[in-house]
Amino acid sequence: MAISPKQFAAIQQRLAGRGKNGAEPDRIRETTPVFAGAVLGVDPSLRGTGWGVVRYGRPQHQALAFGTIRCPARWERSRCLLHILQTLRDVTRQHGAEVCAIEGLFFAQNIQTALIMGEARGAALAAVAESGVPIFELAPRKVKQAVVGFGGAQKSAVAKMVQRMLNLPTIPDSDAADALALALTYLHESGRHALASPKRV
Amino acid sequence: MAISPKQFAAIQQRLAGRGKNGAEPDRIRETTPVFAGAVLGVDPSLRGTGWGVVRYGRPQHQALAFGTIRCPARWERSRCLLHILQTLRDVTRQHGAEVCAIEGLFFAQNIQTALIMGEARGAALAAVAESGVPIFELAPRKVKQAVVGFGGAQKSAVAKMVQRMLNLPTIPDSDAADALALALTYLHESGRHALASPKRV
Repeated sequence: MAISPKQFAAIQQRLAGRGKNGAEPDRIRETTPVFAGAVLGVDPSLRGTGWGVVRYGRPQHQALAFGTIRCPARWERSRCLLHILQTLRDVTRQHGAEVCAIEGLFFAQNIQTALIMGEARGAALAAVAESGVPIFELAPRKVKQAVVGFGGAQKSAVAKMVQRMLNLPTIPDSDAADALALALTYLHESGRHALASPKRV
Repeated sequence: MAISPKQFAAIQQRLAGRGKNGAEPDRIRETTPVFAGAVLGVDPSLRGTGWGVVRYGRPQHQALAFGTIRCPARWERSRCLLHILQTLRDVTRQHGAEVCAIEGLFFAQNIQTALIMGEARGAALAAVAESGVPIFELAPRKVKQAVVGFGGAQKSAVAKMVQRMLNLPTIPDSDAADALALALTYLHESGRHALASPKRV
């Protein structure tokens, strides 16, 4: 069967994703829009809260800043919480984070540990919320899966992959690396047709 | 055995707590000084944080202000935490609280509850710490003991006694009553030779 020049042109247009009259066709819209801004990842704990701001980029995302909020053992708990609050408030504003990713479902050995971890999270969440930045929880397994490709990955493997993905000169410390991994996972998830979108908290 | 007038005068001086030459003797100093300022009591929880400011007074302490920070179930957690942070920061400054009393050792049914309670505590502690106010923990049993006279007292009994002690026109709601009870207990404890002084956090 022969194809006329007119038919051939129509096939070419269809293959190029255009309708018969050359207009843009209706496409299935992406349910999760690609986020192309700066994400703050936070991994809160009383004595060492990791944080990292990652900006969307092609071919590679960029780490704008990262670090660990250290609170010596001699500091009272309220002093640590204030330090977490103030640092994260400054960081969020300074680097223009538009979204925050924090660890979701996680483990605590006992009630006392859970209370203390909860206190650090409370100060961190309040600080970020004060800047008007929406906060999303990501499950630890999802973060490891996205960064290392294996949900049960070791902390050191996460840190090494974070270094590679962000082209950092050295391996970041494990608290900061976890925070950067959260930010990277958020960027990764937002670019897909995610079945389960991150939970806003 | 007869006592000379000189010996009798010496005994009288000793009984009056003075040395032989009539000077003030070295006394055992009070380990806990009497606090005579305004105390902020806080009973944190995600959906209903009680607070109350009580000023020292004789014969009766005075409630300067009290209330409950309510966060509807539809609010995201971070919004609740921000509301707790902002309200307690305003309250601490507005009423010139010099000390904060918060519930110490307490119970959580499970890890998840402990985490959420911890988050509310974290936001509350950070808010108060930001105003430079020192924070002390008081055990719930000690509070009930001080206010009702019985460590296993019901919440309603605490609220009734708080109303009476502060001469309030109505019974405060149970969250605010718990916070006022914490403040009253701090004032009570600070006026005694406490064996176990409140723990600073």
